[in-house]
Order: sequence, then structure tokens, then C-alpha cells
Amino acid sequence: MSLLVIGTVAFDAIETPFGKTDKIVGGAATYAGLAAGHFYDRVKIVSVVGNDFPASEISDLKNRGIDVEGLQIKPNEKSFFWSGRYHTDMNNRDTLITELNVLADFDPIIPGSYQDCEFLLLGNLTPNIQQLALSRLKKRPKLVVMDTMNFWMDVALDNLLDTLTLVDVLTINDAEARQLSGEYSLVKAANKILKMGPSYLIIKKGEHGALLFHKDEIFSAPALPLADVFDPTGAGDTFAGGFMGYLAKIGIIDFNTMKEAIIYGSALASFCVEKFGTERLKSLTKDTITDRIQEFVKLSSFSIRNHSELT
Amino acid sequence: MSLLVIGTVAFDAIETPFGKTDKIVGGAATYAGLAAGHFYDRVKIVSVVGNDFPASEISDLKNRGIDVEGLQIKPNEKSFFWSGRYHTDMNNRDTLITELNVLADFDPIIPGSYQDCEFLLLGNLTPNIQQLALSRLKKRPKLVVMDTMNFWMDVALDNLLDTLTLVDVLTINDAEARQLSGEYSLVKAANKILKMGPSYLIIKKGEHGALLFHKDEIFSAPALPLADVFDPTGAGDTFAGGFMGYLAKIGIIDFNTMKEAIIYGSALASFCVEKFGTERLKSLTKDTITDRIQEFVKLSSFSIRNHSELT
Repeated sequence: MSLLVIGTVAFDAIETPFGKTDKIVGGAATYAGLAAGHFYDRVKIVSVVGNDFPASEISDLKNRGIDVEGLQIKPNEKSFFWSGRYHTDMNNRDTLITELNVLADFDPIIPGSYQDCEFLLLGNLTPNIQQLALSRLKKRPKLVVMDTMNFWMDVALDNLLDTLTLVDVLTINDAEARQLSGEYSLVKAANKILKMGPSYLIIKKGEHGALLFHKDEIFSAPALPLADVFDPTGAGDTFAGGFMGYLAKIGIIDFNTMKEAIIYGSALASFCVEKFGTERLKSLTKDTITDRIQEFVKLSSFSIRNHSELT
Repeated sequence: MSLLVIGTVAFDAIETPFGKTDKIVGGAATYAGLAAGHFYDRVKIVSVVGNDFPASEISDLKNRGIDVEGLQIKPNEKSFFWSGRYHTDMNNRDTLITELNVLADFDPIIPGSYQDCEFLLLGNLTPNIQQLALSRLKKRPKLVVMDTMNFWMDVALDNLLDTLTLVDVLTINDAEARQLSGEYSLVKAANKILKMGPSYLIIKKGEHGALLFHKDEIFSAPALPLADVFDPTGAGDTFAGGFMGYLAKIGIIDFNTMKEAIIYGSALASFCVEKFGTERLKSLTKDTITDRIQEFVKLSSFSIRNHSELT
């Protein structure tokens, strides 16, 4: 039994209205792995870095119980690097630099010890690579979750649609759901996307929370209103990692458990944005997370009085 | 005991991607009054129309139990008229025509029989008029709710700020909360606005639901994801009317009752947008509303497992 995360381990340089960083460690698999590790102790990563990636960072992941056997290190290459600048609203950002480097010819090799994977998170990558990784698992995992983005809808839609037929859960944002379906209404968009393969669809709406669609059911999860959003980088990956880590821990795949998992994923994402990079994610304790979950409960709970009191 | 709504009773001509209307009956007090009337049977309106306003529409309000003694009819003038066109996203609209007509010199006369007002909804109007109406109530209502919009922040900010010191609840949308406070974070915006007078702030986020702020407490209400939004006109007024009608019915003013009232207001608003104008609001039954409330409960409820199960 394990939870396998396939995605980038990389460098980011980030500018927000609150400051800027030099190259710091980021990447979808880093955020998702760290997040999942808070709930589940058999998290494994498949990714690739160059020889510029600090060994101390890899040791740190190991020390946190994350299996990095599947993290390839390319001796003569450089790690994937992304640089971006966030607007004041923190919802929009400009990409300043994208250097694919090792990612350009990434071959997602699955170590033999990873073949016990029951929960697979396909982080945002070329759909072909996501599909290749899945095909290399001899036994199909119990749950396959796929994250993707508008970029792949623009440049690799056919591959994306093909990969979609193979997964159980798709996580995208509201603009991407609209683009993928051609529908403005998220209800209509979800109905179409649920016919493309996944049986669950999670639409991430950032500061507005998330929606989970499954058959005729909808769950609306709140986002915690925050006084300060310091750096949104990795929030979506953290959400997906927390979501998967919680599901792997509980081991049940149904609508009610997914609702809970979304709250746990949202809680971790709400921490992630409080500091630059992975800093906040690395300092979390069980009690801090439990308290934050209670904030989500308090934030969204209400009870309706007996209806007979109404006219 | 009564619930008094001060606002426009008017004509609208609306274009949406789904069609267009000729002049139909609209106005904040119309929507809010009809909404409140579903929960509370002593709803009274203060407004003004011209001689072009159909007597049958006034009779219809009366037949629905809404007191229109305070609805002035100006024999030689025309009713307020607004015309607008919604964009595909239904969140943005262009105003095509605004004819103030009777509204230009509206004097909000309060009939003697209205002096029993305990719940006052100051619909979106010039802040001066809102303040004047409030000052004419001999006994301050138990609860004063004020709706306003960005336009008054642009052209009458001082009057708006002055009026704000007199009210208990302010309802505005997220962009307006940001404009009024100069803060992008809605938490910071709310903290500032709660120092301007109101002890409760409701931030309406349209398809993303609503937030209620009071002291250190926050409630996040979901919006029902809808397959079709036919016409958003009046949704905010319907929300405010449903909210007030429910509070007046229950007669308790506290955070928990306000949370419920927001769900009731949101439910009525979700009906309002299903047809052009007030059509859907006029055809609602108690059972239909009760079912919709249950949809809101189902949409947003989740339960968190015992934490001891977690690592």
C-alpha cells in the first residue's frame, strides 16, 4: 500500500506584493508530497532534478518519511525552473521564466518498490507523461487523481482527453473547467466533464473554495478567508496532496470521505499560502492542522430551525 | 411590528444571452418586498412610481399581503427606468439606459401606520435618502440593514460613510467591500468596515456565495451551483429581502439566526435568477422553498471523523 505522487520537483523564483525570493524549492510533487505526508506515512515520489538540486533538500524529504527512490538525479543537467510575479489580487500571475531543463525529456520510471501503489496522484505534467506513468503500474491503483492546467488544453487537448478516460478524479480550476467543457455554467461543465472519464470532478476556486461533483451530487467547500495571502504558489498542489493523503489514510473512496478530504486539502492549502514556498508546510504540527480543520467546521456550519415555525 | 422596505419600484428592460424583455416591473423594493413576503406577513414598502405604473401591479403586491400605503404615485411623472445588458458570464453588465424620472426628487414619506417598524431595509438609494427615511422613524428599529453600491462610493462617499454610522448591517459585494475599505483581503476589508458603524457585514459574492462578518466570527454561505442563470437582475435585493423577512419572522437578532437568514436569502436569490424579472419569485410555494433550503444543507454539510484516527 502506498500513495504515489508523480510531478515536478523544481526551483521557483517568486515575486508577490509582499516580497520576492531567490530560487527556492518548489514543484508540484514537492508540495503534494509534503502535504500528503501530514496524513499518510507511505508517500512516494516520481520526479526528476538536475545536479544543481541540493542534496540537503532531498534528505529533508526523506527525513519527513517521503520515499524518493523514484526521484531521478541527472548529473549533467539543470532542474526545472519557473519564475513568476503575482498581481495585487494574488489570483493572477505573469510567468517571467520557464526553463524546462530536465523536464524536457522526463521519463517517469517507476521503481519496483513502488508497484504497491494504491493511490496515484498525477501532478500537472504533459498528459502523455501522466498516461505513461499510469501504464507502468502493473496493477491499476484503487484511485487515480489527475491534476492538469489550461496550457495542456491549448497544446495537447487530444492527449489530455485520452488520459482523462483513464482517471477517477480530475482537479482543475473554474476557468479550466469552462475551457475544457465549453460551458460557462459549472454545473453544465461538470456534467460534460464527468462524461469524459473521471467519476469525480473537483473544481478549485481559490479564495472561493472548491466544488466536488459526482453523479448528481455536489459539495461546496468553503475557503478560509485569510487576512494575508503571502504566496499562492503550490496551493493547488498542496490541496491535491492533502486530499490524497487523507483518502489514503482513511482508505475509503466515497462521496462523504471525499468531502472530508477536500476540507483537509483546503486546510493545508490555507497554510501553504501563509509563507513563501514550502516553509509553512514544513512547520505544521498535528494540533495546528486539527485547529484549522475546526475553523473550517465553524466557518461553514449552520442549522436550520424547524420549518413549522415558518409561514 | 413590521418590516419596512425603502427602495425603488421601477421598470427594467433586460438583455441576457437567453433573451430580452420589454419594460417589466423591477426595482429593489419590489424584489425585496416579494422575497420578505414569503416569510413575514407585515411587509411595508416606501417608494415612488409615476402614472405609467400599472395599477394591476400595485394590486398584485397588495394581494400578496404587502402594504403599499407608502408607495407614492406621481400623477404627471414617469417611473424610474433602467435598462441593461448582461455579458455571457452573467456577472458583468452594461447599463444601457438610466432614467431617474420620479426618483430624481424622491421624498421618502413614512405613513403614520408604518411607525411600528422594527426591521428596516434601506434598499440601494442615495445615502441621503436612506438617512432621511431612517430619521423619520420616531422609534429606532430593532434592526437596520443597508444595501448600497459602488456608484455611491464614487459620488457620495461622505454621505455614505455618515449613513453607515447609523446602521446595524451592511450588504455589499466583494468589489464594493474592497473599494470601500481600500483593502484587497476581505478579512481586512471587513475589519475596517465593521469600524465604520455596522456590527454585521454581509459580503455578497454572487455565484460564490456570501460571507457574514461579526466581531471575530465569519460565516461562509455557499451559493447553489445552477445549470442556468437566466437573469441575475434583482438577485441581491431578493437576497436582502429574504434575509430580512426571515429575521423578522424569527424575531431574534444574533449570529446564528443571521446565518440561517443568509441561507434563506440565498435560496430565494437562487430562484430569482431562474426567470426574467420577478416571475419566479411570484410563483414560489412554501414547499418549493423548503426543498431548496434542504439543497443548501446537503450542498455544504460535511462531518469530520474522529481525529484520533489520523497520524
